[in-house]
Amino acid sequence: MKVIFTEKQKKHYPHTFFSSGAPQPNPEVPERADRLLAAAISSGLTAEVPGDYGLEFIAAVHTPRYLTYLQNIHARWIRIEGGSSEVVPGIHPDRRDGGYPASAAGQAGWHHCDTASPVSADTWDSALWSAHTAAHAAKRVIAGDASCYALSRPPGHHATREVASGFCYLNNTAIAAAVLRTTHDRVAILDVDLHHGNGTQEIFYERSDVFTVSIHADPVRFYPFFWGYAEERGSGAGKGFNLNLPLPRGTGDDVYLRTLDAAISSIGKFAPGAIVIALGLDAYEDDPLRGLAVSTAGFERIGHRIAAIGLPTVLVQEGGYLSDGLGDNLSSFLRGFSNS
Amino acid sequence: MKVIFTEKQKKHYPHTFFSSGAPQPNPEVPERADRLLAAAISSGLTAEVPGDYGLEFIAAVHTPRYLTYLQNIHARWIRIEGGSSEVVPGIHPDRRDGGYPASAAGQAGWHHCDTASPVSADTWDSALWSAHTAAHAAKRVIAGDASCYALSRPPGHHATREVASGFCYLNNTAIAAAVLRTTHDRVAILDVDLHHGNGTQEIFYERSDVFTVSIHADPVRFYPFFWGYAEERGSGAGKGFNLNLPLPRGTGDDVYLRTLDAAISSIGKFAPGAIVIALGLDAYEDDPLRGLAVSTAGFERIGHRIAAIGLPTVLVQEGGYLSDGLGDNLSSFLRGFSNS
Repeated sequence: MKVIFTEKQKKHYPHTFFSSGAPQPNPEVPERADRLLAAAISSGLTAEVPGDYGLEFIAAVHTPRYLTYLQNIHARWIRIEGGSSEVVPGIHPDRRDGGYPASAAGQAGWHHCDTASPVSADTWDSALWSAHTAAHAAKRVIAGDASCYALSRPPGHHATREVASGFCYLNNTAIAAAVLRTTHDRVAILDVDLHHGNGTQEIFYERSDVFTVSIHADPVRFYPFFWGYAEERGSGAGKGFNLNLPLPRGTGDDVYLRTLDAAISSIGKFAPGAIVIALGLDAYEDDPLRGLAVSTAGFERIGHRIAAIGLPTVLVQEGGYLSDGLGDNLSSFLRGFSNS
Repeated sequence: MKVIFTEKQKKHYPHTFFSSGAPQPNPEVPERADRLLAAAISSGLTAEVPGDYGLEFIAAVHTPRYLTYLQNIHARWIRIEGGSSEVVPGIHPDRRDGGYPASAAGQAGWHHCDTASPVSADTWDSALWSAHTAAHAAKRVIAGDASCYALSRPPGHHATREVASGFCYLNNTAIAAAVLRTTHDRVAILDVDLHHGNGTQEIFYERSDVFTVSIHADPVRFYPFFWGYAEERGSGAGKGFNLNLPLPRGTGDDVYLRTLDAAISSIGKFAPGAIVIALGLDAYEDDPLRGLAVSTAGFERIGHRIAAIGLPTVLVQEGGYLSDGLGDNLSSFLRGFSNS
């Protein structure tokens, strides 16, 4: 299996992050990619640099004005007297029934919904290549690879059509699915990140051709708080094509795996032609964002069951933060995935 | 005319405020009330302390869970390890189609949409009495006063049914209108604050019994950015009962007064039984929030024209920040208002 990655994805180095009103180090650091790449290589994967797919697949899941915003906002922002060095929003629309402002501060509020995804001069380029990485992995699977691992960083699954949040800017998982849709009528997305994949859900919420399933810590007391509840099943043509499986904080391997079985069973009924795994590793028991309690051995079992689905599979890296176990958890997942 | 005020409204002293990502002093300071009270007294108004109206009129314009939140969030917040001393939200729903979280951080995100309205241990009490002040002034007008000035502080017109923002918590202007509605079938609200009264608009957006009119700096490049556009006319039964009159930055007296004439003309056609003036003084040319350029003499002309509407009138203080002209602008307005 190939691991897709380019060093361009490491330029983005966010410094801003507020948690419960207090400034904290932003945990989405470039070193994550180093650890994951080393683990992938030591697991026997072969590294490959992604091609440049332009905006073709990115524009399939994001709005034009959002892409314009991401590309030019930092240059506009640094002209604000007394403003922060990174783009950090401070005011947001709580509903989208009014107008779209022209000012940098107003657009920042429109296109972000938290303080976890600041924009620096390097953000667009890294996010763009993170998206190319996902698209490239999907292209490889279309070309005949049974599976491919996109080491996408920054991550993507919290990014909606036009809102960045949760360390995410472009929704790499959704972009991989958009690529797969060029050759498959039905594509499934299975999100095993610790956090609900609210961006992915939003993008496909009214569509029946992409079935979105997410297993995550219950949002009632966990990020992203406002989505990820079992009641959210899709709307319009997408009704029934979104499945949320929230788990209590601290859930360990056995309950997690039973939930994964239920997710896989529902995916089987959908009968997709290919699948994207939003591969967060932060469900780990010692991840600094501490929400669930999957063990390193548990990731091997998760990988094994996902491979057993037997579909062409794009693995897209999502969360998973610096801990002694980060690389081991990827290796464990890949071991299970390749030994299915 | 009476000026309604209680010192309890001065306990709230917010310290957090971010502008374009950078921390700034919060301009909504208790001293504003001192300056305005002194100007009201020197203008010949008689001070009166408001009565306690419980939650009767407040609950007419805000949701129960929001009121519960405002009352208990600070006590919950300070138990968060490493959290800020004031409640400051950091993540927000950009749409309201999911679930309502149970955690303090999640609820803070739900019930705020910017960083301008932090909650301290003193916030609820001051906001509550600011609302009682508005209710009391409306009660006086119902009882026969031709007009009454509610020195409401903190202000209210950015607060929606369940979202605090822009230094606002409880929508005093809307609460005054709710009181007037107990005896008048139709009530008008005319908002002359520098900023669009987005909270007031939201509360009455689907209603035809309260006509909301706002004159303000064009939101395309000014707070609140996402609402206040001319296209927003109300919806459902409220279609046609909201009027926004955005003005270019730097608009001075003459254009302002012509716009005011148009607002008053539209209010005349609505034929309300009483009117609430959302009396911001921050359209002043030297207000620190600098958006429009109304002169001190201009406020006298504004007051004169508002009095000439000839309706029972509740004046509810909204914005207007510390400048050498703050008290003079209120005196000027009151001079024009009483000499009509």
